[in-house]
Amino acid sequence: MSYGLIGKLTAVPGERETLLAILLEAATAMEREPTCETYRVNVSLDDESIVVYEVWASMEAHQQSLSLETTKTLIGKARPILANIERLAVFEPRNGH
Amino acid sequence: MSYGLIGKLTAVPGERETLLAILLEAATAMEREPTCETYRVNVSLDDESIVVYEVWASMEAHQQSLSLETTKTLIGKARPILANIERLAVFEPRNGH
Repeated sequence: MSYGLIGKLTAVPGERETLLAILLEAATAMEREPTCETYRVNVSLDDESIVVYEVWASMEAHQQSLSLETTKTLIGKARPILANIERLAVFEPRNGH
Repeated sequence: MSYGLIGKLTAVPGERETLLAILLEAATAMEREPTCETYRVNVSLDDESIVVYEVWASMEAHQQSLSLETTKTLIGKARPILANIERLAVFEPRNGH
């Protein structure tokens, strides 16, 4: 069963573009991950946050992705400039294009 | 500029499957809409809601879609069984697969 999640990440003031660049790097890296079905990086129009929509082949696939070197490196880069991380939803994809 | 939004829809008790069927019908209909770039229907694993992730060619394209006969029919079907609609995010897509 595919497994999806939506995260809302907010940078410390003045660092949104830096955070965006890191997440766009993550998007490129996740394209190479066969178990990553979708990874979309979106700039919020509500506030200064960045909204990431992800779908993985399974919950385990997502869990395993957190131990990838790429992921650990990107998380290490982002952590110092992160003011907040919020999970907006966790879901099972059903249909759509 | 593409325009995206994430909606969280909750049915009245006992009607989630009915609401899901209506939204899956919407997903099929939106595949035929050239200005609808993405329309994903997802079942929440947090609660009884359904989370819809949409991306349109523009804010105007999304606005116009609300006056389509298909959309009006589907909204009419859903309204009686809707307990809550919440907009989780409005965004500008940047990158991803």
